[in-house]
Amino acid sequence: MSGNSIGRLFTVTTFGESHGPAMGCVVDGCPPGMALSAADIQADLERRRPGKSRHTTPRQEPDTVRILSGVFEGLTTGTPIGLLIENVDQRSRDYGDIKDKFRPGHADYTYQQKYGIRDYRGGGRSSARETTMRVAAGAIARKYLGERLGIGIHGYVSQLGPIELGVTDMGAVDSNPFFCADPDRIPELEKFMDELRAEGDSIGAKISILASNVPPGLGEPVFDKLEASLAHALMSINAVKGVELGAGFAAINQKGSEHRDEMSPDGFAKNDAGGTLGGISSGQDILASIALKPTSSISKPGATVDKEGKTTEIVTTGRHDPCVGLRATPIAEAMVALVLMDHYLRHRAQNADVENTTPVITG
Amino acid sequence: MSGNSIGRLFTVTTFGESHGPAMGCVVDGCPPGMALSAADIQADLERRRPGKSRHTTPRQEPDTVRILSGVFEGLTTGTPIGLLIENVDQRSRDYGDIKDKFRPGHADYTYQQKYGIRDYRGGGRSSARETTMRVAAGAIARKYLGERLGIGIHGYVSQLGPIELGVTDMGAVDSNPFFCADPDRIPELEKFMDELRAEGDSIGAKISILASNVPPGLGEPVFDKLEASLAHALMSINAVKGVELGAGFAAINQKGSEHRDEMSPDGFAKNDAGGTLGGISSGQDILASIALKPTSSISKPGATVDKEGKTTEIVTTGRHDPCVGLRATPIAEAMVALVLMDHYLRHRAQNADVENTTPVITG
Amino acid sequence: MSGNSIGRLFTVTTFGESHGPAMGCVVDGCPPGMALSAADIQADLERRRPGKSRHTTPRQEPDTVRILSGVFEGLTTGTPIGLLIENVDQRSRDYGDIKDKFRPGHADYTYQQKYGIRDYRGGGRSSARETTMRVAAGAIARKYLGERLGIGIHGYVSQLGPIELGVTDMGAVDSNPFFCADPDRIPELEKFMDELRAEGDSIGAKISILASNVPPGLGEPVFDKLEASLAHALMSINAVKGVELGAGFAAINQKGSEHRDEMSPDGFAKNDAGGTLGGISSGQDILASIALKPTSSISKPGATVDKEGKTTEIVTTGRHDPCVGLRATPIAEAMVALVLMDHYLRHRAQNADVENTTPVITG
Amino acid sequence: MSGNSIGRLFTVTTFGESHGPAMGCVVDGCPPGMALSAADIQADLERRRPGKSRHTTPRQEPDTVRILSGVFEGLTTGTPIGLLIENVDQRSRDYGDIKDKFRPGHADYTYQQKYGIRDYRGGGRSSARETTMRVAAGAIARKYLGERLGIGIHGYVSQLGPIELGVTDMGAVDSNPFFCADPDRIPELEKFMDELRAEGDSIGAKISILASNVPPGLGEPVFDKLEASLAHALMSINAVKGVELGAGFAAINQKGSEHRDEMSPDGFAKNDAGGTLGGISSGQDILASIALKPTSSISKPGATVDKEGKTTEIVTTGRHDPCVGLRATPIAEAMVALVLMDHYLRHRAQNADVENTTPVITG
Repeated sequence: MSGNSIGRLFTVTTFGESHGPAMGCVVDGCPPGMALSAADIQADLERRRPGKSRHTTPRQEPDTVRILSGVFEGLTTGTPIGLLIENVDQRSRDYGDIKDKFRPGHADYTYQQKYGIRDYRGGGRSSARETTMRVAAGAIARKYLGERLGIGIHGYVSQLGPIELGVTDMGAVDSNPFFCADPDRIPELEKFMDELRAEGDSIGAKISILASNVPPGLGEPVFDKLEASLAHALMSINAVKGVELGAGFAAINQKGSEHRDEMSPDGFAKNDAGGTLGGISSGQDILASIALKPTSSISKPGATVDKEGKTTEIVTTGRHDPCVGLRATPIAEAMVALVLMDHYLRHRAQNADVENTTPVITG
Repeated sequence: MSGNSIGRLFTVTTFGESHGPAMGCVVDGCPPGMALSAADIQADLERRRPGKSRHTTPRQEPDTVRILSGVFEGLTTGTPIGLLIENVDQRSRDYGDIKDKFRPGHADYTYQQKYGIRDYRGGGRSSARETTMRVAAGAIARKYLGERLGIGIHGYVSQLGPIELGVTDMGAVDSNPFFCADPDRIPELEKFMDELRAEGDSIGAKISILASNVPPGLGEPVFDKLEASLAHALMSINAVKGVELGAGFAAINQKGSEHRDEMSPDGFAKNDAGGTLGGISSGQDILASIALKPTSSISKPGATVDKEGKTTEIVTTGRHDPCVGLRATPIAEAMVALVLMDHYLRHRAQNADVENTTPVITG
Repeated sequence: MSGNSIGRLFTVTTFGESHGPAMGCVVDGCPPGMALSAADIQADLERRRPGKSRHTTPRQEPDTVRILSGVFEGLTTGTPIGLLIENVDQRSRDYGDIKDKFRPGHADYTYQQKYGIRDYRGGGRSSARETTMRVAAGAIARKYLGERLGIGIHGYVSQLGPIELGVTDMGAVDSNPFFCADPDRIPELEKFMDELRAEGDSIGAKISILASNVPPGLGEPVFDKLEASLAHALMSINAVKGVELGAGFAAINQKGSEHRDEMSPDGFAKNDAGGTLGGISSGQDILASIALKPTSSISKPGATVDKEGKTTEIVTTGRHDPCVGLRATPIAEAMVALVLMDHYLRHRAQNADVENTTPVITG
Repeated sequence: MSGNSIGRLFTVTTFGESHGPAMGCVVDGCPPGMALSAADIQADLERRRPGKSRHTTPRQEPDTVRILSGVFEGLTTGTPIGLLIENVDQRSRDYGDIKDKFRPGHADYTYQQKYGIRDYRGGGRSSARETTMRVAAGAIARKYLGERLGIGIHGYVSQLGPIELGVTDMGAVDSNPFFCADPDRIPELEKFMDELRAEGDSIGAKISILASNVPPGLGEPVFDKLEASLAHALMSINAVKGVELGAGFAAINQKGSEHRDEMSPDGFAKNDAGGTLGGISSGQDILASIALKPTSSISKPGATVDKEGKTTEIVTTGRHDPCVGLRATPIAEAMVALVLMDHYLRHRAQNADVENTTPVITG
């Protein structure tokens, strides 16, 4: 496949350009018999939707999803689920600058080199708008994982530029525009973002995701270790430059006696592993973090080249997120859901009849 | 597939357990007409081979590779290349402790939970010995990439526990047991490792990889972005807990005007992107780093459970690497080679007849 | 994947139920830079469309296709092409009988057994309406193959029940409702079909496909031989019970000296092979035939069971094709196009830089 | 993948050339906990082994298989199973004629055109010797299917050249060199084959396969219908030119009222479907037949071209099967086993938790 599908058994294939007629996807392999309605998917889309605060792009998209197939009388049938969102706010405008020049740090240049042609309107296929379909498909996976296995998947912004953010109230994440789990820090974030916007610049961010109640056994050694699939899925999100599990890069300076999570019949003493051992889920929470770079579409002028390869300068106007990380939380959650769902099906394909006499330890 | 294959067009499938009869792999999709001999592969295997210094496991394995198919009169034929290394040093010993107890931080527990059975001898399939085949297959990819495209792939240890290491002489990497590119620091590393071994403990490490001369255009948006495939491949290496590209986690605290690599007809002004834009290689060097955790097989006692789920304590004796990161450099290089090779073939499958009028910028 | 995709590099994923909101597909991997409009696809859809004569189902569907992505300013961009056809004629009616009973010879029973639920309206996913998307996707492949390689793909009905049909005028195929290449026989066919319709019964058929100008080299030994991919693709069409290449089943009673196609610098002496040798195209025409069973939705009563497993009788009313084979010609052509396109991309991925000194023989 | 793998979840990857060092394969995805020894596999290999009668090639190969991984203390572990057979009888000889000339009807010419190079010794990768690994891998699948699901897979030669053969005693198949289930006809077959050998010619054959006790539900609509996967797998066997299920090509001249298999609580009235409805197994026996062409390696002279494209004549000497169909029965059985195993795992991946209230009908 040419890269627009993910998952071996719970397979999501997406299509659509930012300013084309519609965004869509096909979810193939969903188990039958699960209640599913457009409203179930819409709720997650709403969390990702832009234009809800001054800190994200003002593009107004209702992002209304239609289920085109795979559901009958309110239940999934096991056949592929087609989803569609018509693009509404494709504001007509002059694309002159990004039509002929390449934004430094943007996919403009590489799409042109790879394909010899690119849909420059709003970034075309490389637009963050593509992630609507990740969120929509992820909502289906998340519903199954929650209902059948009790798995919960929750993320938050753990760093915004220089501002590190902890968790004081996970319940607060969805009620502020920063996906911040420490609501006391929100005024600080607002001030930071307002200054940034005034500068015409953008900023990076870090997102952390936690999946709880994941049963042991998910993940396929050796190349499709659970952490490898998570890294693949998370690194495929626009603007992500790094992925880590558990202690992550901090493990470089840990000793073995310090890093290992000791075990007892009551569970693991701590969670530096981040939920996997040898590529297979251990029953600990999955803990993953990602680094997102600042968006390259900023109004500060930058040196670049044009389509003829000549030196020039570019200023990006238009509607852009000053921090793509701010809306990345539901996207990262969706990717984790897709990976866990796919690995759950893969695991039961091979191991459904395993009789295991070793007790599962739980804390 | 159950996870023992990687690559869509240049596909590597491995098999073998640490203390089974042999390690092997099949490399399918190699272009025909390339000169290939066992010696070409042996050279890379030699770099990974244990037992060459006191700082790695003393297990003695000649790691002699046989080419079983796919090569005729010294040239690849386009048919699958079978590779085999017989295991020689499967020292007979008492496995009592790891047979019935789970090492904390190790795959012992999760293999048992997933499969209900595990080959506990030397870690079985979860042993780092599996990486011989990654290196062997990677050597084939690396040869093609080097000869046909001029791509070079070079790695080094950029951090050992608390000791950060730069590059003063890349040529020195292969002549010291630490894959260190700053030879003046070697005494410091030796002292650190000697103390660690005396403690019976282990340590994490960071490896950095650079691929030069990569043409623009490799990588398949949206899910199989080049960085996503790299993250997948690198995170699938034993003990890896984090992957980053270019500025990586440092991008969190960068502004857009700072992160973006400005462009001119002479190339990119710098390389914070790490070689990809929007999932496609840009022509910049690919820069990737990985974090490796400390090995969990240490002689310091640790609390754990046994196969009946009862609380107990474990001490791992036997031959183990105190820093798995030390031998990970050729493995990481091999994984990068496999990813680039696969994406090169994928790219030319779809885009071989693209006529591109935009000049490639090069520095 | 759960079976709704075909092709490794030119990958088509379809969705949609007969009486759901829409039929759709995603075509991933299409090379960029090819002119493509909805009209190009519509022409092939028109050939498959029902309701054009009294010999096919009277269901009226305009089958108007929309291109939702992957095309910009009239050219393919290399990104996935989303196609959609809204279902229009989902006539509201009483499904009582097929809702609770299983038509013998139909997928009703097996869908129920596999998924525990089925969309019984018009056959749901098992409806021949699914093949609209095969034809739509195939039109894209066919256009590329024709324009870039000069490949032509043409089919015709070679047997209708007991009536064997030869080729006197391939140009006549599209101007009669039987896809018959021997126009003198049409009155005979009309009489046969009229009698059959009066009986309330259905009939099988044979379709033959010829692909000309296929270059040598397409096909991947050993499991993905070109003939194996063709067999897969053609046998996946609804109602197909047999596939053969070249001499096919007649080869059972051939001697080696009789079957082999002798070669000279001017080409092959004849074509019993059907265009492949050892799984790879030889440059001869690809010749494939398929056997289609009679449709099971007939008005003659049949013994069956109901959803509770009790014995009963069923009469299928409603709009059904008395000979599904009659509209299968464009579908079979589309499947051949998809296979050739996929194998063309696979071949050039591995072998684009082969320097071959052996001349291609052509007749 | 480049075509040397089959199966999505129970995945077999083979390698090896006729006169190279060894034949091998990797079986990935086998469920853990099944007893498996080399003897289990050897028994099926013995049935395929040449040199046991005067009617097959006199090449003497012990075909001794080694299990290199994936089995521990006599049980499968869920990790990949590596299998290896060293080639022993690579008789040193002069390959002059087939080195520089292309046998008409053989893969010689197409391998040369595709890859620009070919291992001409004994046919290289295109040799029927490759099928050892299909049989070896199939033996593992067959054991699982038999032990866990009670599935039996049995084949026989149903036609040899002009001689059609029925079933009077399936138990006799393995005790005669013709895989004939009608032992009274053996003298007739011997006479036919003796005359053929005297002529220096070869002949085609038909093999029929029956799989019993297959549960309903296997097969993935729409592209991976069970019959499509069977067609793929069977058509990938060397020399196969046609595949049919159930009534097969005879369905062309059946009416719907005649073809459909009526149902009752006691099962199906007959089996013209051949075991599948709409791509999914129905619980009826799977009935498949294949047509094999006569081998092209015969001693009768034939017109052909040489590597320079010049006209010439070829006589194939050496050890060749006069009827490749004669040893194809265990190979076809193996392919059916691989397909059923793969689809069983795929089915339970998606549908393991389906609660079905419709009774299974059985006869």
